[in-house]
Amino acid sequence: MNPDRFFSPDSATRNLARDLYQTVAALPIVSPHGHVDPRLFADPDAAFGTPADLFIIPDHYITRMLYSQGIPLESLLEGDHRKIWKLFCEKFHLFRGTPSGIWLTHELSEVFGVDEKPSASNADRLFDSISDKLASPEFSPHQLFDRFNIEVLCTTDAATDMLEHHQAIRNSGWSGRILPTFRPDGVVNLDAPNWKVNINKLSEVSGINVVDYKSFIQALEQRRAFFKSMGATATDYAALTPATAELTLTEAEIIFQRALKGETKADDAVHFTAHMLMEMARMSSDDGLVMQLHPGSLRNHNEVIFQKFGLDKGADIPIQTEYTHNLLPLLNKYGNDSHVKLILFTLDETTYSRELATLAGHYPVLKLGPPWWFHDSLNGMARYFDQVMETAGIYNTAGFNDDTRAFCSIPARHDVWRRTSANWLAGLVVRHIVGMDDAREMIQELAVGLAKRAYKL
Amino acid sequence: MNPDRFFSPDSATRNLARDLYQTVAALPIVSPHGHVDPRLFADPDAAFGTPADLFIIPDHYITRMLYSQGIPLESLLEGDHRKIWKLFCEKFHLFRGTPSGIWLTHELSEVFGVDEKPSASNADRLFDSISDKLASPEFSPHQLFDRFNIEVLCTTDAATDMLEHHQAIRNSGWSGRILPTFRPDGVVNLDAPNWKVNINKLSEVSGINVVDYKSFIQALEQRRAFFKSMGATATDYAALTPATAELTLTEAEIIFQRALKGETKADDAVHFTAHMLMEMARMSSDDGLVMQLHPGSLRNHNEVIFQKFGLDKGADIPIQTEYTHNLLPLLNKYGNDSHVKLILFTLDETTYSRELATLAGHYPVLKLGPPWWFHDSLNGMARYFDQVMETAGIYNTAGFNDDTRAFCSIPARHDVWRRTSANWLAGLVVRHIVGMDDAREMIQELAVGLAKRAYKL
Amino acid sequence: MNPDRFFSPDSATRNLARDLYQTVAALPIVSPHGHVDPRLFADPDAAFGTPADLFIIPDHYITRMLYSQGIPLESLLEGDHRKIWKLFCEKFHLFRGTPSGIWLTHELSEVFGVDEKPSASNADRLFDSISDKLASPEFSPHQLFDRFNIEVLCTTDAATDMLEHHQAIRNSGWSGRILPTFRPDGVVNLDAPNWKVNINKLSEVSGINVVDYKSFIQALEQRRAFFKSMGATATDYAALTPATAELTLTEAEIIFQRALKGETKADDAVHFTAHMLMEMARMSSDDGLVMQLHPGSLRNHNEVIFQKFGLDKGADIPIQTEYTHNLLPLLNKYGNDSHVKLILFTLDETTYSRELATLAGHYPVLKLGPPWWFHDSLNGMARYFDQVMETAGIYNTAGFNDDTRAFCSIPARHDVWRRTSANWLAGLVVRHIVGMDDAREMIQELAVGLAKRAYKL
Repeated sequence: MNPDRFFSPDSATRNLARDLYQTVAALPIVSPHGHVDPRLFADPDAAFGTPADLFIIPDHYITRMLYSQGIPLESLLEGDHRKIWKLFCEKFHLFRGTPSGIWLTHELSEVFGVDEKPSASNADRLFDSISDKLASPEFSPHQLFDRFNIEVLCTTDAATDMLEHHQAIRNSGWSGRILPTFRPDGVVNLDAPNWKVNINKLSEVSGINVVDYKSFIQALEQRRAFFKSMGATATDYAALTPATAELTLTEAEIIFQRALKGETKADDAVHFTAHMLMEMARMSSDDGLVMQLHPGSLRNHNEVIFQKFGLDKGADIPIQTEYTHNLLPLLNKYGNDSHVKLILFTLDETTYSRELATLAGHYPVLKLGPPWWFHDSLNGMARYFDQVMETAGIYNTAGFNDDTRAFCSIPARHDVWRRTSANWLAGLVVRHIVGMDDAREMIQELAVGLAKRAYKL
Repeated sequence: MNPDRFFSPDSATRNLARDLYQTVAALPIVSPHGHVDPRLFADPDAAFGTPADLFIIPDHYITRMLYSQGIPLESLLEGDHRKIWKLFCEKFHLFRGTPSGIWLTHELSEVFGVDEKPSASNADRLFDSISDKLASPEFSPHQLFDRFNIEVLCTTDAATDMLEHHQAIRNSGWSGRILPTFRPDGVVNLDAPNWKVNINKLSEVSGINVVDYKSFIQALEQRRAFFKSMGATATDYAALTPATAELTLTEAEIIFQRALKGETKADDAVHFTAHMLMEMARMSSDDGLVMQLHPGSLRNHNEVIFQKFGLDKGADIPIQTEYTHNLLPLLNKYGNDSHVKLILFTLDETTYSRELATLAGHYPVLKLGPPWWFHDSLNGMARYFDQVMETAGIYNTAGFNDDTRAFCSIPARHDVWRRTSANWLAGLVVRHIVGMDDAREMIQELAVGLAKRAYKL
Repeated sequence: MNPDRFFSPDSATRNLARDLYQTVAALPIVSPHGHVDPRLFADPDAAFGTPADLFIIPDHYITRMLYSQGIPLESLLEGDHRKIWKLFCEKFHLFRGTPSGIWLTHELSEVFGVDEKPSASNADRLFDSISDKLASPEFSPHQLFDRFNIEVLCTTDAATDMLEHHQAIRNSGWSGRILPTFRPDGVVNLDAPNWKVNINKLSEVSGINVVDYKSFIQALEQRRAFFKSMGATATDYAALTPATAELTLTEAEIIFQRALKGETKADDAVHFTAHMLMEMARMSSDDGLVMQLHPGSLRNHNEVIFQKFGLDKGADIPIQTEYTHNLLPLLNKYGNDSHVKLILFTLDETTYSRELATLAGHYPVLKLGPPWWFHDSLNGMARYFDQVMETAGIYNTAGFNDDTRAFCSIPARHDVWRRTSANWLAGLVVRHIVGMDDAREMIQELAVGLAKRAYKL
């Protein structure tokens, strides 16, 4: 890998970018939002599995691209792992110019010492060599956590999760800082596949019998307190839209009772979600947990794939998203509340300059999260810097988060962010928009400072 | 014309771009979608006419710009062609920095050897010099077709077209490959101006008496088979929105009967179009013709102009377009069908990174067409590369098509694409995102490979 | 300040940009739209006040950013001005990379000779030094007007304004050219806070008793004639959306009567605004005043702030805006009318390439205004050039306007526009899209020519 990768070809800019990058390249990784399984660090027997387990099977970026080119998911998710790996290597050219291509190249090189491009001809050899490494003690999750220089890693955990793995990590005496994040989608979304089962579980784990709206709220508050006691500093929630609107207690109760009876009406779930977003802001104001909102993904667009293979198979597709009107009720009630912190994300880049930067540049409770999912890429970051920063300023943003379940890709993702940050700042310096002294402070903020403060870490 | 035109001023990037461009500059032109009149190549008497006929009168890019600056369409479309030409030359500065300016400059220089900028003072001289050339045998359509090095040129033809010109080309023994494309808008859009006339013509040319929905479908299938027998590999369709939704047979029949009686209700056309898009996908699955969809243009926005001068006078204006929800029914039924190929276009660039790249990066039936119409430009292409390729990868795109009725502009348009492709790839190489070996393969794909495969040519 | 600031780091581009910029750097400023208080130039006692009065208190760009970072508006708008100034200096880092940062740096350096970055440690000294300057005769509004080399400055004035300050300027014999602009929002928007009061004032100042729709229209026409007699060449209007739709006289009358009685129904204001936009175009056709339309800002999003501090405190947030359908009625009636000029603005950049450039590139009545408000920035201008110019051409745009109430920031804002224009043109030249001869003409147009013609100045 070239040490100047991703920097502008202009030599003045490149020199400044390199200089700025070097001041943050070795900083510890702060990962305030992601989906790594805490079991990896809790269970002494946990392991990464085969190269296919590590690189392909759980990674919907990879499987969606291969599927789009006519490769059946069966041949990627099922059967012999060496064959899966070989198929992936044969098709490695599909990832040219994509973020997956960049992450994979980084992981292979930096984590596994593989500097060859995967191909049909070296697939077997690479499979063996990576497998050998994965079997060695140096490649245990704990060892890699240290090697990756991770200061803190936040996971995402269902509201009903007992956080046994987090407890086990604490009990183990291991020094790695791994914190849970409270994600109540399964009990808040009335149309969640197993909602009733989840509610029963919520009663069980909270010790509060959820029989009505009031006990539901109490149980949620109990869980938040539990998560907080386990180190959580934040919550997360994914809604189709960021619509917010408070119901009366009576309305909330009526809808909740219908849901309990399995008699949910059309739009009940929509109204309840809009209401619960208000309620989550209220709870944040009370307990100080940072609120994250990830709207705008139409999940499981491909029903055939969902029926056969379930969630998270690369068939979630973004939709247009509106924030200015949708967040009005929430911001009018909590927008000026110094106890609330709300970090907003988007899959609709048109909202960067129009809505999100202008909202975050005014409301004290708001911070804008980094480019998310499909936009967590070189160009996605460049567009974010260009379209957000002039209006919001960097101090109303929340730094970077990797949002990944692929543990070994974490260094690659943070490295891309640090490089693009350095390159963006170098572009400001070289055009005399900010001085190098300012840029040196800004790159520290972008690399770790903003994330730590936004997430209270 | 400068040999490095349109490349980045950065010398490293420019050198790589030039190198990559040179590997495809002389490749034959593959033109899988456009609007050139096949009569040009079928009728031995067909000619390009005057310089005004060639450059101005049929080109809505040109007439719209001149009209926007207060020049009446009458003085551009009617009367003495030398005067029309002169008016155009006087106003040539209006095209500074526009794609039309680039195409015109290329055509004048490369096709007609004119390297002067048109102006009031040289207008007469240029008119004479171009007229002389157009009168010479070297400027016959056949000769230019060979000189332009066109491997295949696809036209766009109404479903009711008998394809006499295509037949005449075949009969003539001429070696040029010109293929029809099936475009059923005139019979599918219930609100098309002459719908009933078109239906009668459909009955006539298909030999199937179209008296109900069932016979309508049979007639369409008959025409598709005929087009296929004449070499067609694709269909095309322009809808205001990409909404798709299947009607029951009964519903379709009721709407169709209302239309036959001239008693169409509000929304009948909308529902019928949404249904017919499903039906076209079904037919594609059956006969293997590639389906193209060009939505999002509000045609004939300026009623005064439409009443006086008719269609295609530069008054079609894009609207916001939604794909994620709209295509859900079609993709749920046909999105995983290995027999279907659907090439999507857009005039709403906000859908590139949000919807189109994410859909094309998952569904095997989808390919994303090149930047269309107003976005067929240097910046339009740069935005397309930047916003599409990271998520879709180049292999889920369909290469380039010129979509033009201006035959002599075809080399200019493909040249712009090849240059911007080379420049984009050079930018990836110089930032160490892909290697030069990869870039060399990618430029071949972008120039011809992707288009040939996407259109089964 | 670096003389090459904001230019591309590429040396070829930078050299050309510098060359082009130097041809317009010293041109007089044409400011066809803004919000400077005419009293500054009419009242011999008018002064800029303290540094806090000048730089902070009236500038919603500044207060919104500070508020977003948790600083109460009370401490920015009330109390000791030296304390306010100090707070601002302490937080000056928040403006890194923002347009405010650029404008402030330019004002401090060019107007006040301050080349230090404001900070806690130099705040007091800067306050004193700027205060001293403001107290000197060289810093009177008249002196600065001359020093800024302003050829013409247009203000924005309510329809009910008697234009006493404009009259006083005329009477004073001072040579500065300051023109009013007719802004009827307060009487046209039925939901304006003091609508009835405004209507009474309209009766009073027009001498026409506004008792029905007909007398309302007459009074507006009277005011337009008065404004025109005082030098106005343009009107301005801010609507939430650009929806246009003509009511019948009866419908308009019924709605107007309801409003007079304080019995406005839901949507009355919306329908009336849509109708009045048609009516304003009709009036423009009659009296030749240029029509400006600024849609898409949801004013006073933060109710708490609005209740405590009123309008224009940085809490106006843009919304998605649609032009193609919304302007259809207006453009079908007036789009081809050679007496009408309509300048469109947007806060929704997605409409640049999709709707605004395509509309302005066709309709002779339309011109596209410069990047507005949050988009009046280096990147906002770059996006505008990239997304608008290929389709509209520069000649369908209206040059620049600073739209500011901060008089001392006017030179800074025009300088940013001239620099970004030069840089954009240099990018065209260096890529051989236009020649340097063309670019030299284009930069003159962008700097002053287009604005003067579009606003009939």
